[in-house]
Amino acid sequence: MIARIENGRDPGDAMIEQPYLLFLGDAPDQLAAKVAQGIHDWRPDHSVGQFRMAGCGADVGIPDMTLEEAKAAGARTLVIGVANRGGVISQAWKDVLVKALSMGFDVASGLHNLLRDEPELVAAAGAHGTTLHDVRIPAAEYPIANGRKRSGKRCLAVGTDCSVGKMYTALAMDAEMRARGLKSTFRATGQTGILITGSGVPLDAVVADFMAGAVEYITPDNDADHWDMIEGQGSLFHVSYSGVTMALIHGGQPDALILCHEPTRTHMRGLPDYVPPSLERLRDLALPIARVANPACKVVGISVNTKALGEQEALDYLAGVEARMGLPAVDPFRHGAARLVEALEAV
Amino acid sequence: MIARIENGRDPGDAMIEQPYLLFLGDAPDQLAAKVAQGIHDWRPDHSVGQFRMAGCGADVGIPDMTLEEAKAAGARTLVIGVANRGGVISQAWKDVLVKALSMGFDVASGLHNLLRDEPELVAAAGAHGTTLHDVRIPAAEYPIANGRKRSGKRCLAVGTDCSVGKMYTALAMDAEMRARGLKSTFRATGQTGILITGSGVPLDAVVADFMAGAVEYITPDNDADHWDMIEGQGSLFHVSYSGVTMALIHGGQPDALILCHEPTRTHMRGLPDYVPPSLERLRDLALPIARVANPACKVVGISVNTKALGEQEALDYLAGVEARMGLPAVDPFRHGAARLVEALEAV
Repeated sequence: MIARIENGRDPGDAMIEQPYLLFLGDAPDQLAAKVAQGIHDWRPDHSVGQFRMAGCGADVGIPDMTLEEAKAAGARTLVIGVANRGGVISQAWKDVLVKALSMGFDVASGLHNLLRDEPELVAAAGAHGTTLHDVRIPAAEYPIANGRKRSGKRCLAVGTDCSVGKMYTALAMDAEMRARGLKSTFRATGQTGILITGSGVPLDAVVADFMAGAVEYITPDNDADHWDMIEGQGSLFHVSYSGVTMALIHGGQPDALILCHEPTRTHMRGLPDYVPPSLERLRDLALPIARVANPACKVVGISVNTKALGEQEALDYLAGVEARMGLPAVDPFRHGAARLVEALEAV
Repeated sequence: MIARIENGRDPGDAMIEQPYLLFLGDAPDQLAAKVAQGIHDWRPDHSVGQFRMAGCGADVGIPDMTLEEAKAAGARTLVIGVANRGGVISQAWKDVLVKALSMGFDVASGLHNLLRDEPELVAAAGAHGTTLHDVRIPAAEYPIANGRKRSGKRCLAVGTDCSVGKMYTALAMDAEMRARGLKSTFRATGQTGILITGSGVPLDAVVADFMAGAVEYITPDNDADHWDMIEGQGSLFHVSYSGVTMALIHGGQPDALILCHEPTRTHMRGLPDYVPPSLERLRDLALPIARVANPACKVVGISVNTKALGEQEALDYLAGVEARMGLPAVDPFRHGAARLVEALEAV
């Protein structure tokens, strides 16, 4: 289940070979293909086309291709960019995947059902020397964290709750940084992020003792002016997953924190008895924790998911947060990540 | 690697059947047999005798027995209570273990080398219907934590660093509680604790997403006047393991915290660049974290490992801490856990 790290490999190297053919299968609607959409939105150069089956109701907006056409266009990996219905990899899917493996494609998946648990797929990959990537399973044997100060800079998004836009924030800041010619690498810590970038660690699936070490591993020494934009996970206030968040803060030793919030949530995701904390409570807990690993850490900005608010309501809310907290507060989806990146540059 | 939980089993039930025969092997000295000593010190009724090989320099102070004598005395499990030299299970050990398995003993071990990786042992257990317990590997499939308030009370020891006496403190408090006729159960979260009590979870080996759920699982609903004395792990200030500590606090939802400290340590264990925090810093970080899961949580006492101090120095140090912090401060090894238990009773 755990493969040894090859000596000398840069953890930023893609583990999943590009370019991709995005497999949308028989996705009933656009939402079911949100992983494929995310890959295309954030890394438009990573995919040559999409593969859709009869009845597919999703469209990522790139050319439809057969396996043969994708092969001719240079695709190396078929990436399953769609959720499977009922938690079963259907025979119709398997037929396509077996053919792809036989043609020399690798196959990558973030599904709960593992590719490696499907004998037909294992046999096809074995026969043709192709690779099955189950990105929910750690692909490396991580060390125990050593806490040594690393060169380069790191930014981590932490949330008042799970699913408040931490990944989106890090990806948007990374894109803005690179658009400005600044050195930035998005470091994926979850399934979707790994499929988008081709590398990273599925932190929620790592054994407890190695969580912080896995984060150190994917954010190694770097140029002094390079920023790792580390994908956040969970929340310090979410009792189911707070240990993962803690390991991310101590393993990532961030120089900068971005606080992420969704203002209309009435209880913590999946925990009906828990009220989400204020941004102030998040700041007051996250900062002393982060300063254990990096005494220079600062909270530099606030990212608010205002999807549930009207435009004026969103602007008013953000202005209120900004006045209260004395930090730039933006919705990067609505208004871009420019001000967050400017806050980072000021560090 | 992961077995499913039997429905309805109380997690407090021993997974490892008692009584034990304590295997000391060829332990070169007493320190090498500290697991066996711990089992005997804390659960003197759990073992019928000890098994020593030629050259054994350790003695737990209970009758020496052959396998046959131990069998006749009712022993069910041979527990490896000694560290193995060089990380190898020697042929001399294996000969004894194979014979024990063939005679109907289960074998339990907390060694890094797993019993299940030794073909001779697997074959002997299979042939005779006996069980190999590797307590470093989780024995159950744990749920994701749900954070629901549970009945009964829970106490957790948290430390300024790793290895400052958290397990000792919880065991000593549990013993004192039971001596006073109070309802208490020590809940093991590490290898030695599991061997002592026969059950628990090896938290450092649990997959990240299930850490807090594993702690909930071993500390279920209980009588209103029952205390779980939960074994602590790591430290919020130890960047290698702080995620484990966080999950323990949020999964355990403690009503009471005991702060543990070793006053002569100059840097965090294994982290030469990290200075251990003061007891005040530990209190100020641990308490808001604990109150996420249990708003009523209080810090009730302080446990100091004063082994490195002379008697008067230790008394002076404890008096100073007590005056500074306004809480009972004791070394439970030196002076007993009575005052910590009294502090708990006052909750």
